[in-house]
Amino acid sequence: MATINCDMGEAFGLYRLGEDAALMPLIDLANVACGFHASDPGHMRATVRLARQHGVAVGAHPSLPDLQGFGRREMAMGREELADCLIYQIGALGGFLAAEGMALNHIKPHGALYGMAARLPHVAEAICDAADVFRVPILGLPGTLHESIYPARGHRFVGEFYADLDYTDAGTLIITREHPPVDPAAVAARCRRAVAEGRSTGIGGAAIAVGRDSICLHSDTPNAVEVARAVRAAL
Amino acid sequence: MATINCDMGEAFGLYRLGEDAALMPLIDLANVACGFHASDPGHMRATVRLARQHGVAVGAHPSLPDLQGFGRREMAMGREELADCLIYQIGALGGFLAAEGMALNHIKPHGALYGMAARLPHVAEAICDAADVFRVPILGLPGTLHESIYPARGHRFVGEFYADLDYTDAGTLIITREHPPVDPAAVAARCRRAVAEGRSTGIGGAAIAVGRDSICLHSDTPNAVEVARAVRAAL
Amino acid sequence: MATINCDMGEAFGLYRLGEDAALMPLIDLANVACGFHASDPGHMRATVRLARQHGVAVGAHPSLPDLQGFGRREMAMGREELADCLIYQIGALGGFLAAEGMALNHIKPHGALYGMAARLPHVAEAICDAADVFRVPILGLPGTLHESIYPARGHRFVGEFYADLDYTDAGTLIITREHPPVDPAAVAARCRRAVAEGRSTGIGGAAIAVGRDSICLHSDTPNAVEVARAVRAAL
Amino acid sequence: MATINCDMGEAFGLYRLGEDAALMPLIDLANVACGFHASDPGHMRATVRLARQHGVAVGAHPSLPDLQGFGRREMAMGREELADCLIYQIGALGGFLAAEGMALNHIKPHGALYGMAARLPHVAEAICDAADVFRVPILGLPGTLHESIYPARGHRFVGEFYADLDYTDAGTLIITREHPPVDPAAVAARCRRAVAEGRSTGIGGAAIAVGRDSICLHSDTPNAVEVARAVRAAL
Repeated sequence: MATINCDMGEAFGLYRLGEDAALMPLIDLANVACGFHASDPGHMRATVRLARQHGVAVGAHPSLPDLQGFGRREMAMGREELADCLIYQIGALGGFLAAEGMALNHIKPHGALYGMAARLPHVAEAICDAADVFRVPILGLPGTLHESIYPARGHRFVGEFYADLDYTDAGTLIITREHPPVDPAAVAARCRRAVAEGRSTGIGGAAIAVGRDSICLHSDTPNAVEVARAVRAAL
Repeated sequence: MATINCDMGEAFGLYRLGEDAALMPLIDLANVACGFHASDPGHMRATVRLARQHGVAVGAHPSLPDLQGFGRREMAMGREELADCLIYQIGALGGFLAAEGMALNHIKPHGALYGMAARLPHVAEAICDAADVFRVPILGLPGTLHESIYPARGHRFVGEFYADLDYTDAGTLIITREHPPVDPAAVAARCRRAVAEGRSTGIGGAAIAVGRDSICLHSDTPNAVEVARAVRAAL
Repeated sequence: MATINCDMGEAFGLYRLGEDAALMPLIDLANVACGFHASDPGHMRATVRLARQHGVAVGAHPSLPDLQGFGRREMAMGREELADCLIYQIGALGGFLAAEGMALNHIKPHGALYGMAARLPHVAEAICDAADVFRVPILGLPGTLHESIYPARGHRFVGEFYADLDYTDAGTLIITREHPPVDPAAVAARCRRAVAEGRSTGIGGAAIAVGRDSICLHSDTPNAVEVARAVRAAL
Repeated sequence: MATINCDMGEAFGLYRLGEDAALMPLIDLANVACGFHASDPGHMRATVRLARQHGVAVGAHPSLPDLQGFGRREMAMGREELADCLIYQIGALGGFLAAEGMALNHIKPHGALYGMAARLPHVAEAICDAADVFRVPILGLPGTLHESIYPARGHRFVGEFYADLDYTDAGTLIITREHPPVDPAAVAARCRRAVAEGRSTGIGGAAIAVGRDSICLHSDTPNAVEVARAVRAAL
């Protein structure tokens, strides 16, 4: 059965982002920020604890090192320095998982890193290099290098459907710096179709193949809680 | 028998600090910087690998979050935020240890954090809170809160002698931002006495009690390699 | 006549803090964050531009280098390194002022730096060292080193009243990491009295001397706009 | 007459890079790091002071925000956020120039930013947007967008010859993360020819057009001082 995954723990210091407390009861997998695009040690601890309290499995949501750009600016990094950058972040999250008596459930690259891994082999390979250390499934986008390289390297690939973002007619995800509100009913309908058929509709109307293993919701979508409720009800 | 421990992996990006390659064969325990006062993911990976190649045990050397100040400026942090800050760093190092098939051997707080833990109970307790997660011995300074609080919290305390720093006549360590060269023969003699008797001499000539479980050498002392050779020969 | 000053431009990347757009029309002086406790180049530019559009004078609001702690954690820094740290930030703001055709109006140290300058001579002197370069008035707290050292160094001192924070009965300001909502009418009444008499009431009921040159409001107080309207009406 | 320019002030905290004290007497223009790829407020102050003592003109050497990567990793940034990022850095340097009674002499983008501006119009335009504020010449590479866009925007272009780096046979500069030692006599000969003829030789032997207004030397080339002496003697 399809899970609902959500990027969580994206606060930083005094700054807040996303309604984690309201969303956590509605999701299955929390992709927890590791301090490179958002979060800090205190928020990571609190997020892992909140996940534990709601029986939500915790994955690492590592990023390019770009706090000011929220990890949404592409950076030219070599495979080895990128793999080390990911191992650092996933390891750091592992400290808080150990503190709360939990195990790492999955890895989901964040933002520009996710987009780069979809089309640049050395980035997808670097993610696998990091996953080699932690041996957990990797969430990603079907029809991209995520789907071809992760399993080829022996990692389980969990194909995602992005419920609150648009896709091009070529089936490519459109990643934006800020997320506008979306219609919960429409999103829920899209999710039902994605999970049932593995299909959705691009912004130009084309039928496209999409992931069906896990539905991704964004916690910084303004009406994220309402959307999550609709999707949970739909599944 | 007393070990030799040394702060290692304190390079950052293009910057180099300390002669790690020359020192690693001469020490028993490497206190590896975790990115908050020095180092970065690439240097952490390389340092852990180098330690493994020389059969050196790896400990975490976490710091206050102060890269520009090399962790040598005291900061007012609460117990909980400090503990989380340490768990983050030790966890991150854990990623590289897992990558290299090694286990964490010990924890040694860095710089201002080390000094604060010696006299501020909430700092020593925060270090124990972090150590509760990883269950390894903590290196520290006899005659301070390190020696009283760590064991009281159930952690093994490893008492250090600082071979290349001065002590006050009250037995307090004098921590400086930069380390001048020291005389290898004098340092070796001091180490022999420390290990044999648990005693040394303060800058004013007073006899003082010092640690004898492990000798600490600094990799950024200009003649660190020469000093390490002399100490190893002496022990 | 007393001015209203407010810390502005404390967003960072995607993160938002404070209702700058709503507050700017209600204030006289904007203390603009310089990137060390909050803000980034884009937000600094936008904040200076917003101030210009509303005819608000812009001052620098430099901080200790502590983005994660929002500049509210004390750090041990020497006079010279602190002065350089402030010159850097004020100079950076100067770039945006030049871009918008404005001149620097004042300097107001932020958070822990403000509190340290009130009681530590080397910190107050470091602020003067920086102010020597830019030759503008410094906002501060009467009855502290702000009031004695700044004028002694030849800088104009602008005494502040903190409308939305509490004072001890000794007249000391109580600086907190987060600011709770406050009663606008009560705040307005306090401001009227402060400006008219230079007096207010401590949390224990004692009559205390306070600043009367400028009223400080915090943009991250939850009902900051309402408070600002009440204070502006009262003055 | 051609000047010698050199990137200076690239230390950070305890870390040292380049022999600034030995090089400063040998150069005409110091490109001073502004804290985003290297340096910090203390080193910036010291570098500007050193330049003043040797009568060396100071330019800003701003970078992409990437301290760990020394500004040598390309990042996807929009024109406006990039311009703001540069204004911040140049303004910050301006604080130290004001402190030392000097004026800004020029701007020279650093590392990946320099390379991106050579071929990406929005990057070259962003540099001009920043230069609009400070009205000083911009150092750059002939035969690239530096040479076409800067003057088109009304900024004086100073064409550089890179004495210690290789060029492709297409005349493109080969920027590397670390700089190996170079032969001083060969470099000096190349410089003489570049200044006299505006020509040099690519790594494959092709004759190429190069800048002749200013010779750039790198302070992190291992034998930088020797090279600088040879070039100064040659000019």
